[in-house]
Amino acid sequence: MSRTRIHNFSISLDGFGTGEGLSLDAPFGHAGHRMHQWMFATRFGAGIMGGEGGASGVDDAFAQQHEPGIGAEIMGAGKFGPPCWQDDPDWKGWWGPNPPFHTPTFVLTHRPPSQPLEMEGGTTFHFLDTTPEKALELAKEAAGGQDVRIGGGPTMVRDFIAAGLVDHIHFVQVPILLGRGVRVWDGLEGAEAGYDIETVSSPSGVTHLTFTRS
Amino acid sequence: MSRTRIHNFSISLDGFGTGEGLSLDAPFGHAGHRMHQWMFATRFGAGIMGGEGGASGVDDAFAQQHEPGIGAEIMGAGKFGPPCWQDDPDWKGWWGPNPPFHTPTFVLTHRPPSQPLEMEGGTTFHFLDTTPEKALELAKEAAGGQDVRIGGGPTMVRDFIAAGLVDHIHFVQVPILLGRGVRVWDGLEGAEAGYDIETVSSPSGVTHLTFTRS
Repeated sequence: MSRTRIHNFSISLDGFGTGEGLSLDAPFGHAGHRMHQWMFATRFGAGIMGGEGGASGVDDAFAQQHEPGIGAEIMGAGKFGPPCWQDDPDWKGWWGPNPPFHTPTFVLTHRPPSQPLEMEGGTTFHFLDTTPEKALELAKEAAGGQDVRIGGGPTMVRDFIAAGLVDHIHFVQVPILLGRGVRVWDGLEGAEAGYDIETVSSPSGVTHLTFTRS
Repeated sequence: MSRTRIHNFSISLDGFGTGEGLSLDAPFGHAGHRMHQWMFATRFGAGIMGGEGGASGVDDAFAQQHEPGIGAEIMGAGKFGPPCWQDDPDWKGWWGPNPPFHTPTFVLTHRPPSQPLEMEGGTTFHFLDTTPEKALELAKEAAGGQDVRIGGGPTMVRDFIAAGLVDHIHFVQVPILLGRGVRVWDGLEGAEAGYDIETVSSPSGVTHLTFTRS
């Protein structure tokens, strides 16, 4: 059965999924790249940067789950571009001509461009102004029986969890205190019910949290 | 050298140190006892409840650090009693005639009773309306060269960390989402600097976070 999954989603100790002051020059605001260093140090992370090497321990084992079996992604507007990317007709995402999705990719925004955007390598961005439920329905159809990844940022992750739509969650808690930004946990009282939760601390200093629908 | 330490302080996944709706019948509000079940399952926890047995793995190893070497405790008003305990001249804390502190214990409150309260077993409650710095100075004097424990609740824990007064922090992250209550992390941007942080996940499901002054 097709599952809806979150992978490699970094959060700070104080529960922020991204920093404050997001912009073209600072996609994660004042958080910078501190939230993702654990991933760049893995073989998976090195690979997506076009390099080689990297650690192959527990962080990599988790990171490698990101791609296999995924047939579509849904992301929020804040992941696709800096604030007001909708006003720039040439904006095609952060990832260059060949984005690392290689599947239909649904971008939730209240101001959707009218045309999908077909990129190299199998990624097509579809822009939608709709509910999490409806977006997931469309993404499941597009995934052709495979799983759907919920790609972030924190606001849409929270919305999809609150709506009870996510079967597997992998958060990576990074030992920094951001103090400000967008919280991933707000409004999720009791949302752990119905999940088996595991926490695994890594020698790198991060802690992997997994929630699996029980 | 005398150190200032926090031990066995439970927080929810979403960073709350206590729930909402604290009262005489619900000392932790809607959190109930969920935040402390990990501790009651240990030998340490069984012992403070006057019982025997309990697990002696990693949770107990951490829990047992609570007492040794401590010469005084500082706690917030919210730990000493339910809201407005100051209006009840007979209130002597939650712990009965022989509280589990056995040292001078300083209670921070904006409405301090005028007299200290001497209990059985070596605990004397002193009531203070003062700054974290001044309270720590007094507690260190009273501790006679031993360490001072910062006893909670979350508001005073946050204040003491923000003031840079804490040398060792042990938080226990419990896999529940409280959704509301008092946050322990607020206003602590960058407070991890100057600490070595370790995270250790336990088979019980909790994760131990330690911050040690580097």
